Amino acid sequence: MNHRIVFRMLGHILRIEAVFLLMPLAVALYTGGGDAKAFLITLLLTAAVGQALSCIRPGSERFQARDGFAAVALSWIGMSAFGALPYVLSGAIPDYPGAFFETVSGFTTTGATVLGDIESLPMGTLFWRALTQWMGGMGVLVLTLALLPKTGEGSVYLMRAESPGPIKTKLLPKIRDTATVLYKIYIALTVGETVCLRLAGMSWYDALTHSFTTISTGGFSVKAASIAAYPSLTIHWIIIIFMFLSGVNFSLLFFALRRNFTAVFHSEELRWYTLITLGATGLVFANLVVVGRQAFSFPVFTDALFQVVTVVTTTGYATQDFALWPILAQMVLFVLMISGSCAGSTAGGVKTVRMVLLMKNLRREVHRIIHPRVVQPIRLDGERVEESTLSGVSLFFYAYILLTMVGAVVVAWDNVGFVESISASLTCIGNVGPALGALGPNGNLGGLSALSKLVLSANMLLGRLEIMPLLVLLFPSMWRK
Amino acid sequence: MNHRIVFRMLGHILRIEAVFLLMPLAVALYTGGGDAKAFLITLLLTAAVGQALSCIRPGSERFQARDGFAAVALSWIGMSAFGALPYVLSGAIPDYPGAFFETVSGFTTTGATVLGDIESLPMGTLFWRALTQWMGGMGVLVLTLALLPKTGEGSVYLMRAESPGPIKTKLLPKIRDTATVLYKIYIALTVGETVCLRLAGMSWYDALTHSFTTISTGGFSVKAASIAAYPSLTIHWIIIIFMFLSGVNFSLLFFALRRNFTAVFHSEELRWYTLITLGATGLVFANLVVVGRQAFSFPVFTDALFQVVTVVTTTGYATQDFALWPILAQMVLFVLMISGSCAGSTAGGVKTVRMVLLMKNLRREVHRIIHPRVVQPIRLDGERVEESTLSGVSLFFYAYILLTMVGAVVVAWDNVGFVESISASLTCIGNVGPALGALGPNGNLGGLSALSKLVLSANMLLGRLEIMPLLVLLFPSMWRK
Repeated sequence: MNHRIVFRMLGHILRIEAVFLLMPLAVALYTGGGDAKAFLITLLLTAAVGQALSCIRPGSERFQARDGFAAVALSWIGMSAFGALPYVLSGAIPDYPGAFFETVSGFTTTGATVLGDIESLPMGTLFWRALTQWMGGMGVLVLTLALLPKTGEGSVYLMRAESPGPIKTKLLPKIRDTATVLYKIYIALTVGETVCLRLAGMSWYDALTHSFTTISTGGFSVKAASIAAYPSLTIHWIIIIFMFLSGVNFSLLFFALRRNFTAVFHSEELRWYTLITLGATGLVFANLVVVGRQAFSFPVFTDALFQVVTVVTTTGYATQDFALWPILAQMVLFVLMISGSCAGSTAGGVKTVRMVLLMKNLRREVHRIIHPRVVQPIRLDGERVEESTLSGVSLFFYAYILLTMVGAVVVAWDNVGFVESISASLTCIGNVGPALGALGPNGNLGGLSALSKLVLSANMLLGRLEIMPLLVLLFPSMWRK
Repeated sequence: MNHRIVFRMLGHILRIEAVFLLMPLAVALYTGGGDAKAFLITLLLTAAVGQALSCIRPGSERFQARDGFAAVALSWIGMSAFGALPYVLSGAIPDYPGAFFETVSGFTTTGATVLGDIESLPMGTLFWRALTQWMGGMGVLVLTLALLPKTGEGSVYLMRAESPGPIKTKLLPKIRDTATVLYKIYIALTVGETVCLRLAGMSWYDALTHSFTTISTGGFSVKAASIAAYPSLTIHWIIIIFMFLSGVNFSLLFFALRRNFTAVFHSEELRWYTLITLGATGLVFANLVVVGRQAFSFPVFTDALFQVVTVVTTTGYATQDFALWPILAQMVLFVLMISGSCAGSTAGGVKTVRMVLLMKNLRREVHRIIHPRVVQPIRLDGERVEESTLSGVSLFFYAYILLTMVGAVVVAWDNVGFVESISASLTCIGNVGPALGALGPNGNLGGLSALSKLVLSANMLLGRLEIMPLLVLLFPSMWRK
C-alpha cells in the first residue's frame, strides 16, 4: 500500500478530531466538571500528532482501492485510540481497554457501554461520548471529503470503503458535493430533532446530546435509564420517528428533498424496511399481550414499537428492559439485530438490501432446479444486479456470522452466560448497543475481561466498516510497498 | 414434475419400509412387550399403500433433476408419516405430532426426543426407534437403488438429491454399484461396532441398537441416561472411534479399503475435520479444568472428547450433561452443531467441506482487494472448484441460518427460554439431537407445542436433505405436469 498517503490521511482525520474536541472542552469549562484538563491534554496531543502526520509528503499520488480500505481502517482505529484518552485522564474509565471500548462504541455508533453510573460523570465527558457517535454516524472520512478542498482520484475509494451497503449510489457527479449534501441532511435532521425534543420538554443539553445519538443511530444517553428516564410518550414518539428516518438510505432522503418521490416509493429496500418494522412490532406486541399478560393499550404498543425501531435501526436506546420480556419478543429483537436497516443510512447490521438480495437469490436457486434452462437475472428497483455483487453479499453474510461466533467464543471464556456471550458479540458487530440477559438495557459490559473488550471493539469496527477494510490489514502482503 | 414416476418411487420406499417393520415385529413377538399388534397393523397398512402406489404405470419415463428432488422429499415425508404409527397405536406417544417428530428425528438421524422415561417402553418399540436411524443414515433411496434391479437415468438425480455435500464423488461407473458398496461399508461398520460393544460388556440387544444409532450418527439410546448409563471407559472409547469414523466421507473409507491411502491423506476435508475435533476438545478440556474446576485427568479428557465428537458428528449421545458445563464449552459445542462433519458421511450440519470452501472464498475476496488484477481459482484437494459451486455454498449457508432463525422464532412462542429456542432449532436442522439449557441431554422436547414439533420436524428434514428438495415443493410451478 501507499504508506505515505495513508498516514497523511490519518493525520487529516486526527486534526479534525482535535477541532471537534474543542466542543467538550468548552462544555467542560462552562459547566466546571473538572474534566477540562483531560480534554485539553488530549486536544493538544491529537493536534500535534495529526499535524505531524499530515505534513508527510506523498512519494507517489497513486491511490488504489486497497489504500482506501487501509486509510479508512487505520483512521478509525487511530481516532478511537486518541478519543479514549479523556476517559482515562479524567478517571471516568480508569482502564485503557475499557476506555477504548467505550470510544469505539461511540464512533461506530454502537452504544454498548462499560459504564454503570452514567449520571455521575461530568457533563463535558457525556457530551464527548454523545459527540463521538455523531462524528461516526455519517463517517469521518466522508466529513473529511466534504471539508478538504482538494479531492483527488482516491476520494471515490475512501467514500466506497466507509459508506455501508453493497451497491453505492452516486448522488452528484462530484464526490465532494455528494459528501457535502449528505452532511447537510445529517445536520438538518439533528437540528430538527433537537428543537422537537426541546419543545417536548427536554433541556437543551439533553435534547442536543440525544439528537446526536439518535440521528447517528448510536444510542448513548446521558441518563443511565436511557429514554425510560423521560416518561413523556411525546418524547418517545419523536425519537421513534427520527430513529426510523435515520435508518433510511440518505440517498432517498435526498431524493425526497428534491421532490423526486418516484425514486422513494420505488425503493424495494425502503418497502421491506417498513414492512419488517411493522411486522416485528405486531409480533412483539402480540407476544407482550398474550404471553406477557401486558395490557392491550397504546403505551404498551408504543413500547413494542420503540424497542423494535431502536433495535432495527441499531440505535440501542430503551424505554423498557427487553431482556425481561417473553422469549418470542427477545428472539424477534435478536433477528432484527442481525438484519439492521437500510444501506447508506447511519445504521448497522447486515442491512435490509442484503437481506432482500439473499432472499431473491435463494428463490432463484430453487427456481433453477425446477426450470434448469431458464436464466433469470436478479433485479433490484428494476435494475439488474451483477452476479459478483450477489456472491459478494452471500459471502459477506457468512463472514458476518463467522465473526459473531468468534466474538461469542471469546466472551464465553468470561463465563457470563450463553445468551449474554452470543448477544454481546452480535450487538457489537451489528452496532446496536444493548445485548440480552444480564447484559441487556439495564446491564453493562464493564465486567468483561480486557481481551473480551478488545475483541468486541474489533467486532464493532468490523461491523461499522463492513468487514473488508479491517480484514485487509491482516494480510502481510498488504503492508508491502 | 412427473407425478406418476415420483409416486411410484414413494411406493417402492413404503414397500421397503414394510419389510424393515418385520424386524421390530419379530422383537416384539419374541420379548412379548405388547407392541406387536401396533407393528403388525402398521406393516400391513404400509405394505398395502406401498403396493398400490408402486403399481402406478409411468406415463413417461422422463425423469429430471426436479423429479429426483420431489421423489426424495415426498419419500422422506411419506415414510415418516407411516413410521410414526406404531408409537401412536401402542400408546408410547399418544399424540400424532409428537410421534411424527420422533420418527422424523429417527429417519433424519437427529436423535432429539419427546420421550422422558425411555426405559419404560417395550423392547420392540425401542428397536424400531433405533432402526429408523440406521435406515435413514445412509439414505433410504440409496438403499432402493442398491436393491432395485433396474436403475434408469433418474437414479443419478435420486442419489444426488439424497446424499449430502456440495461436490458429489462417483466411486464406481454404475450408480447401483456405488450404492451397493456404500451399504457394504455401512453394514461392516455396524457389525464391527456391535461385536466390539458386546466384548466390552454390553448385551447383544444394547450393542446392536447402539451400533445402529452410532454408525448412522443418530444418537437414540435405549437408556434414558444415554451412554452415561455405561460407566466403562472402554465403551466410551469404542463409541468415540466409531462415531468419528461415521463422520468421515464414506468415499474415503472406500479408498482406504482399496489401500488408496494417497486419496485419504490428500483430503483437505478430513484434515480439517480432524483438526477441528482436536482443537475443540482442547478448548473444552481447558475450559472444564480452568473455569469448571474439574480434575486434569483422563476421564475428564474422555468426557470432553466424547461430547465434542458426539456433537461434531451430529450423533447426540451424552456421557455428561453438557448443558451444565461452563459457557465456553457450551459455545464451542454450539459452533460445532453448525459446522458438523464431512460431506458424504451419515452426519448432518453444514459440513466441513462447505466451511473450508467458505473460508477459502473469503480469503480470496480479501486478497482480491489487495491485488485486483490477479484471478485466483479456488482449489480443493488440488482440483479447481467451479464458481457456481462456491456461490451455491454461500447461499446454502445463508438458507441454513435463515431456517434456523425461523425455527427459533416459532419455538420462542412456547416461552421455553432463549437458549432453548435457538439451540433446539439448530440441533434439529443440524440433525444433532440434544439442545442446550433445559432441553439439553437430560431434557426432552415433549413439552413443546404441536406447531413447534411440526416446524422442528421440517427443520430436521431440511437439514438431512440439505434444504433444496423441500423448498422445491413450496413452488406451485413444481406441481404442474
